[in-house]
Amino acid sequence: MSDLLKKTPTKKIMLFSGRAHPTLAEEVANLLEVELVPTTAYDFANGEIYVRFDESVRGSDAFVIQSHSAPINEAIMEQLIMIDALKRASAKRITVILPFYGYARQDKKHLGREPISARLMADLFTAAGADRLMTVDLHTAQIQGYFDGPVDHLLAMPILTRHVKKKYGKNPLAVVSPDAGRIKVAESWANSLGGAPLAFIHKTRDVTRPNESKANRVVGEVDGRTCILVDDLIDTGGTIVQAAEALKAEGAADVVIAATHPVFSGPAVDRLKNSVASEVIVTNTLPLGDEQRFDTLTVLSIAPLLAQATAAVFEDGSVTSLFKD
Amino acid sequence: MSDLLKKTPTKKIMLFSGRAHPTLAEEVANLLEVELVPTTAYDFANGEIYVRFDESVRGSDAFVIQSHSAPINEAIMEQLIMIDALKRASAKRITVILPFYGYARQDKKHLGREPISARLMADLFTAAGADRLMTVDLHTAQIQGYFDGPVDHLLAMPILTRHVKKKYGKNPLAVVSPDAGRIKVAESWANSLGGAPLAFIHKTRDVTRPNESKANRVVGEVDGRTCILVDDLIDTGGTIVQAAEALKAEGAADVVIAATHPVFSGPAVDRLKNSVASEVIVTNTLPLGDEQRFDTLTVLSIAPLLAQATAAVFEDGSVTSLFKD
Amino acid sequence: MSDLLKKTPTKKIMLFSGRAHPTLAEEVANLLEVELVPTTAYDFANGEIYVRFDESVRGSDAFVIQSHSAPINEAIMEQLIMIDALKRASAKRITVILPFYGYARQDKKHLGREPISARLMADLFTAAGADRLMTVDLHTAQIQGYFDGPVDHLLAMPILTRHVKKKYGKNPLAVVSPDAGRIKVAESWANSLGGAPLAFIHKTRDVTRPNESKANRVVGEVDGRTCILVDDLIDTGGTIVQAAEALKAEGAADVVIAATHPVFSGPAVDRLKNSVASEVIVTNTLPLGDEQRFDTLTVLSIAPLLAQATAAVFEDGSVTSLFKD
Amino acid sequence: MSDLLKKTPTKKIMLFSGRAHPTLAEEVANLLEVELVPTTAYDFANGEIYVRFDESVRGSDAFVIQSHSAPINEAIMEQLIMIDALKRASAKRITVILPFYGYARQDKKHLGREPISARLMADLFTAAGADRLMTVDLHTAQIQGYFDGPVDHLLAMPILTRHVKKKYGKNPLAVVSPDAGRIKVAESWANSLGGAPLAFIHKTRDVTRPNESKANRVVGEVDGRTCILVDDLIDTGGTIVQAAEALKAEGAADVVIAATHPVFSGPAVDRLKNSVASEVIVTNTLPLGDEQRFDTLTVLSIAPLLAQATAAVFEDGSVTSLFKD
Amino acid sequence: MSDLLKKTPTKKIMLFSGRAHPTLAEEVANLLEVELVPTTAYDFANGEIYVRFDESVRGSDAFVIQSHSAPINEAIMEQLIMIDALKRASAKRITVILPFYGYARQDKKHLGREPISARLMADLFTAAGADRLMTVDLHTAQIQGYFDGPVDHLLAMPILTRHVKKKYGKNPLAVVSPDAGRIKVAESWANSLGGAPLAFIHKTRDVTRPNESKANRVVGEVDGRTCILVDDLIDTGGTIVQAAEALKAEGAADVVIAATHPVFSGPAVDRLKNSVASEVIVTNTLPLGDEQRFDTLTVLSIAPLLAQATAAVFEDGSVTSLFKD
Amino acid sequence: MSDLLKKTPTKKIMLFSGRAHPTLAEEVANLLEVELVPTTAYDFANGEIYVRFDESVRGSDAFVIQSHSAPINEAIMEQLIMIDALKRASAKRITVILPFYGYARQDKKHLGREPISARLMADLFTAAGADRLMTVDLHTAQIQGYFDGPVDHLLAMPILTRHVKKKYGKNPLAVVSPDAGRIKVAESWANSLGGAPLAFIHKTRDVTRPNESKANRVVGEVDGRTCILVDDLIDTGGTIVQAAEALKAEGAADVVIAATHPVFSGPAVDRLKNSVASEVIVTNTLPLGDEQRFDTLTVLSIAPLLAQATAAVFEDGSVTSLFKD
Repeated sequence: MSDLLKKTPTKKIMLFSGRAHPTLAEEVANLLEVELVPTTAYDFANGEIYVRFDESVRGSDAFVIQSHSAPINEAIMEQLIMIDALKRASAKRITVILPFYGYARQDKKHLGREPISARLMADLFTAAGADRLMTVDLHTAQIQGYFDGPVDHLLAMPILTRHVKKKYGKNPLAVVSPDAGRIKVAESWANSLGGAPLAFIHKTRDVTRPNESKANRVVGEVDGRTCILVDDLIDTGGTIVQAAEALKAEGAADVVIAATHPVFSGPAVDRLKNSVASEVIVTNTLPLGDEQRFDTLTVLSIAPLLAQATAAVFEDGSVTSLFKD
Repeated sequence: MSDLLKKTPTKKIMLFSGRAHPTLAEEVANLLEVELVPTTAYDFANGEIYVRFDESVRGSDAFVIQSHSAPINEAIMEQLIMIDALKRASAKRITVILPFYGYARQDKKHLGREPISARLMADLFTAAGADRLMTVDLHTAQIQGYFDGPVDHLLAMPILTRHVKKKYGKNPLAVVSPDAGRIKVAESWANSLGGAPLAFIHKTRDVTRPNESKANRVVGEVDGRTCILVDDLIDTGGTIVQAAEALKAEGAADVVIAATHPVFSGPAVDRLKNSVASEVIVTNTLPLGDEQRFDTLTVLSIAPLLAQATAAVFEDGSVTSLFKD
Repeated sequence: MSDLLKKTPTKKIMLFSGRAHPTLAEEVANLLEVELVPTTAYDFANGEIYVRFDESVRGSDAFVIQSHSAPINEAIMEQLIMIDALKRASAKRITVILPFYGYARQDKKHLGREPISARLMADLFTAAGADRLMTVDLHTAQIQGYFDGPVDHLLAMPILTRHVKKKYGKNPLAVVSPDAGRIKVAESWANSLGGAPLAFIHKTRDVTRPNESKANRVVGEVDGRTCILVDDLIDTGGTIVQAAEALKAEGAADVVIAATHPVFSGPAVDRLKNSVASEVIVTNTLPLGDEQRFDTLTVLSIAPLLAQATAAVFEDGSVTSLFKD
Repeated sequence: MSDLLKKTPTKKIMLFSGRAHPTLAEEVANLLEVELVPTTAYDFANGEIYVRFDESVRGSDAFVIQSHSAPINEAIMEQLIMIDALKRASAKRITVILPFYGYARQDKKHLGREPISARLMADLFTAAGADRLMTVDLHTAQIQGYFDGPVDHLLAMPILTRHVKKKYGKNPLAVVSPDAGRIKVAESWANSLGGAPLAFIHKTRDVTRPNESKANRVVGEVDGRTCILVDDLIDTGGTIVQAAEALKAEGAADVVIAATHPVFSGPAVDRLKNSVASEVIVTNTLPLGDEQRFDTLTVLSIAPLLAQATAAVFEDGSVTSLFKD
Repeated sequence: MSDLLKKTPTKKIMLFSGRAHPTLAEEVANLLEVELVPTTAYDFANGEIYVRFDESVRGSDAFVIQSHSAPINEAIMEQLIMIDALKRASAKRITVILPFYGYARQDKKHLGREPISARLMADLFTAAGADRLMTVDLHTAQIQGYFDGPVDHLLAMPILTRHVKKKYGKNPLAVVSPDAGRIKVAESWANSLGGAPLAFIHKTRDVTRPNESKANRVVGEVDGRTCILVDDLIDTGGTIVQAAEALKAEGAADVVIAATHPVFSGPAVDRLKNSVASEVIVTNTLPLGDEQRFDTLTVLSIAPLLAQATAAVFEDGSVTSLFKD
Repeated sequence: MSDLLKKTPTKKIMLFSGRAHPTLAEEVANLLEVELVPTTAYDFANGEIYVRFDESVRGSDAFVIQSHSAPINEAIMEQLIMIDALKRASAKRITVILPFYGYARQDKKHLGREPISARLMADLFTAAGADRLMTVDLHTAQIQGYFDGPVDHLLAMPILTRHVKKKYGKNPLAVVSPDAGRIKVAESWANSLGGAPLAFIHKTRDVTRPNESKANRVVGEVDGRTCILVDDLIDTGGTIVQAAEALKAEGAADVVIAATHPVFSGPAVDRLKNSVASEVIVTNTLPLGDEQRFDTLTVLSIAPLLAQATAAVFEDGSVTSLFKD
């Protein structure tokens, strides 16, 4: 019998990065002590994306990192094309890492004849050849169920609360949700911060001022407290900055904004740096340019969490245990 | 050429009912002025379900109504078997009507190694041969995205608020969510009731009473108001009855409980009838036995809504417009 | 290069049991010298099933044992939910072990507009995430083809015939099928018992007695013989007990009933213990309560067969060779 | 608004025939008073099949008839290619008519490492684009479950028994199965022939004649009776001709062979025409050349049954009712 | 029986346009005498696309037009999202119209570890819910096979050759392919232009000029002829402009460039307007801004072809016959 | 813990051969130093194929070699059945090796209502259970995209050009395509042969000879050169033999025919051996009988290429690198 007939297989981790947020991918690679797989990627003149891996990926346990930052459809399409190329090049297993899951906010039909784009994204990744997903702080946890396979849903909250506890732990705190739909997340924060009181902003049409459209009514006690205003993401910053003002108006001692995903579109940076918030805490799930940074901004790295989870997936360890105290 | 060669097709609606809640199905059939298709259904000695339709269903536009009431797994399996039989008997299109969608609360992984049973249900219906779903007040709207096809998500809230407005519209109202996770629904109610204030119950570990585990803290103003305590379903009734008590303790003038789905498991009926709530309003998405009815219970019929939506689906009309003004 | 980059994978067997027949699962686990994976499983108040595994199952070669005993739809749904949870928790391969395959008797349309529930079950297991099936003595062997993947179809006959040969091998034997549709199985028994003669019971409308509906006509020679009356399962026991009587009436010296699956619904136990059969031989593919046991009942364990086959599947050995003597 | 915007659709039946058995297809077309769609079909020099339809098939309700006669793999592949062409040319619905379903006998694994080719055929038809199947007298009824969609399983038995009743109805009859596995079918015949007695041939190793391998033991009473020896198909004719001899040897007054599918391979015709059977009754589900016909052969046409069922499918009528009374 | 029970269905055409090339969609709608369905579409601040249809689309025969023009990934994603919304809103059939099919040039792996993006696009459209595709002059005809369903592949050549014949029909012509891979298309042109001679440009490393990398060698006779240089698309225009120069250098009397798809990226317009070509003929499958038009450019409308094909698909007419002269 | 609980898996290569071209499979096996897996395969009397593997294949990395030679539909069906049997017998991965991919020429619709049989083949292999394909010199490279998974597309050109360079490298060469559609392949040859000039045969209706239908016009310079006439396959040989004559007529010094796949149908051998070509070079991707060999035929073995690629797939090495000089 030939030596070929039987052999002990080896598992080989390979880490791939799209062009949206290479520094995060590199940080993860460094923590894992592997190199990102050299990849040729560019746009054709008409905007079509070209990708090719410069090394054999056959049999690899492939992890494809891409943040869905603007231009977001480019970022998604590039990742789909990378997955197609990996599938056709015989990668053994393809894990799609989405530090920020694009279109997650379109997770239901608010009105008839709308898409459910968050489900569509899961279907597109499946169609391209994804075997599993890894993502951070989904807009709603139900999105896990949009993918027909394993989803490792990582939570950035412990990273954010650790920072908050250290810096503000001695103040009287309140945890505030900027709108009614996200109080459940605020409740987790409140528990994590030792049972701080909970409040939320209720947007109502103010019947006493007919010419103004909306009022931000604070529901819950915030007077004299350091309010931790929490959300999953900051997009244009309008809602959260108004919420911060409403809290101050209700007597909040201080307002700290904390969110996992710094989408920071359009006027967000201006609004945030000029807001009443004394600190804005985010992670680096999305890339931030120098012009998007400001004095009161704190950016915590998500890379250690992604690296730990990737190692656990590769080594068949428990990802759940990463979140045990 | 034979007369056979070309013909104008006709569409034929056929309505089928499982054994879980036949009176609702009959009510829908009556409103549509059709007969339920005669169906033979029984259990074999070992509990296996047998179903056969007594008329040809070939080419029909089939609607299969089954409430997922206890014993819930029987109800689901019977509906799956009915769908399989319809598929194999050449029904043209199969719409699954779920007045109450079983397992909807298991719509995410709270912990590692849990199922997402709400997604599994959608997959089972797809595997059996369902083309589309119709359902009422899903536990979370995201569940629509679990099915890869059209889902008509009907809302019972207009039925419930119409009753509330008529009966309590002149009182000062507050809309209250029994827990932090469902304030979004309460917010819709508040809007529908003309901008009533919003409150919720925050369950906390009460640090001043070390031997007691939980306190129900009311967040928001309820003093002197008729509190409409709203939820999608009432299961054992424990949470909502405690919430009613907490509202009374905070000075609520009156408490009215309103929920779409009367699951009414175990102690629910006793708890509700002995509770501080002056009225409990539900719909008949689930069957209620005589022993599950009590003086303060009001049951509004969901059948007109299901009938209208079924007619709209059959006639390619707009279901969305059913919810306008 | 990091140590992480390449590693030799290990395969890990993990055995899971639903709540239907835990003693069989434990027996299999003991034979394999592994522990059943600790699992939290209970019913919610409305009957929805909750399952969670208490240990990481990532990368495991998972075997999920569930007997489809009454309440049978609960048992099936629980197994589907377990599979969903395993899939989402990254089990590497999921083998579904069905000592008794529910709904196997509904394996064709006898009449129009019936389901083919046995195929539906295969589709449901596929939809949930099953990679392969293992089962014992299917009602018809064609059911193997309902699953689009590997099915290990184990045969209990060698276990049963070994017992029969030892105990009755010196008697003149006849092998009898209780109805015309299952003579093929009886033929296998006859071959296995050294070429014993074959007979079957032909149920006919007896034209000489117009007021009685059926006669059991014995076709084949049974006079003076120890008749081994064989079937795949005993449900209510009516057919087989009448067959035993017919054999006695035709002069059978003795009647021994042998069947793989003791469904034992409703009157089965009473009928069997009061029957003319001197022994009833079954396996433990289904759980039997103390009240379902009686003096003439012999229960042979299927666990060694399941354990051997599970080991062969895990170790990529031949299952076929288990049946070579 | 343009006239185009809305219109009443028409359904158009189109009948297609492969090259295996055109006379049957023409007979069906004549009964339906339609023309077979003109089709260009030929083999390339290397045996690849080319098919093209000579008229637009867009929007049609297409029925594709092909008997799986020898060379059987050509016949199957041609039908698959026809289906692919119909799918790509926008046929609205594709019904595959298989008067004889090839590979139906390979419907289970008798041994390890065998295919289940009957399931594979169903999967191939699905892959090509079939929406539904129509077939006649499957080898086992379970094969219906191999296709995930509607299967119209037509029964030729009424056609055959009508002939038998008319010709032999006054004789004392017995219905005989040529082997143990097909007695169920014989039982249906026996019922249909007014409760005739049932027998079968048990093949055993005859222990008294060590040098001969098999004996055909008749189980059941046949003495002095006209034995109707029934099977689904006659392939080489070996088994059935030996069975006929065994019946004669047991005193049968006459032997009539009846089978739906005249596969008639190799020595079949010689064996049958020289056999002790006084008549061999088959249908024309498979083509028979002149050299395959002989004096005692009666061929009944299946075309009326196929035509009626096709019309029922096209017109959404009941196929089940074709078999009533 | 209710009037509802049976009805004659109507088919309703609905035409939808993405934002990439609305004027083409409007032109098609005008020709069909229908209105484009009013649609709300905009980008969120972070670039996520939002789409909603302003009228009920239930039961419609939907045609979704989107040209894949730059920014191409936006255009594709918008079309996918429109399809998802149509699927979930119960459109009866969804035809995707791609006047220009993006990524069609990536239709094979030239090197290992490349994607096949043209196939990926087909898979993405399928995943979103497309039932059929309509497209114009695919880069290679094999791409039709990437979609598992009907593809109406329309040919613009007759539109282009009609113009060429009218204007240049009296000159001595030659048809030239700009590279070796597309001579087949040129051959069709040559046939359509009455058997004009055929030539192509062979790019070679010119061994006599070691410092220059490539030479364009004209293979075929072009001297004194009006050369029609044909391609499926013009992207940056580099290749085709150099080809025109090579033709002039070989003595061509005149050079006319003809291509279906005016991608016109980057320097294309400058190159073309300054080239030796006397005319550049394209269609409007892609939008052209005013700054992309120049004196020698002729744009022929593809709208009549799309309108005719759409009408044929809606009315189940033959699309093939559109190309019969 | 049992020894069983964890173990290091082994990978086991297993090579299977259909009956179409066993000598090629044996040659590959020898080069890999493995044995072909003993397989029982025969035809039933009616032409149905039976296959069974004589050893356990559980967990194997299976490679199934079958050349699609005449009778081609038998060859394809046999391979599909082998795949089904492997899937059901728990092979871990199934790679389908197609030295010649049948139906590859039917890779697009030339006319309406044609099949795309090359795509159908890919779908059939998927339906049967293939995980990956390996094939040699596809008729068009786009066919790779017809399979939704890895395709190793091997190139025989280096084998052929090595022979040509050695034997004719000192002559002045020209590379000629026998028709306009395949010049791209000829261009690769030209590059590989150091930049030889390129020509092709343009088939035209010769306007000067109205009674003759076609002329073969040579486009490009061939005078005095050794013309290498290249194609992917030789079927009946008509086109290529006429092309050779046209080259001679244009003054070619010598004509050498080179093609990967010797289909050699009907008159091919006669035509080739009597042609003006001084040598005909092919590989053994298809079996050649003794009567198909002739003096000027050179057959180069493809087995080393298949063996290398198989080893690379098994060992997760790079197949791409096999083609780097």
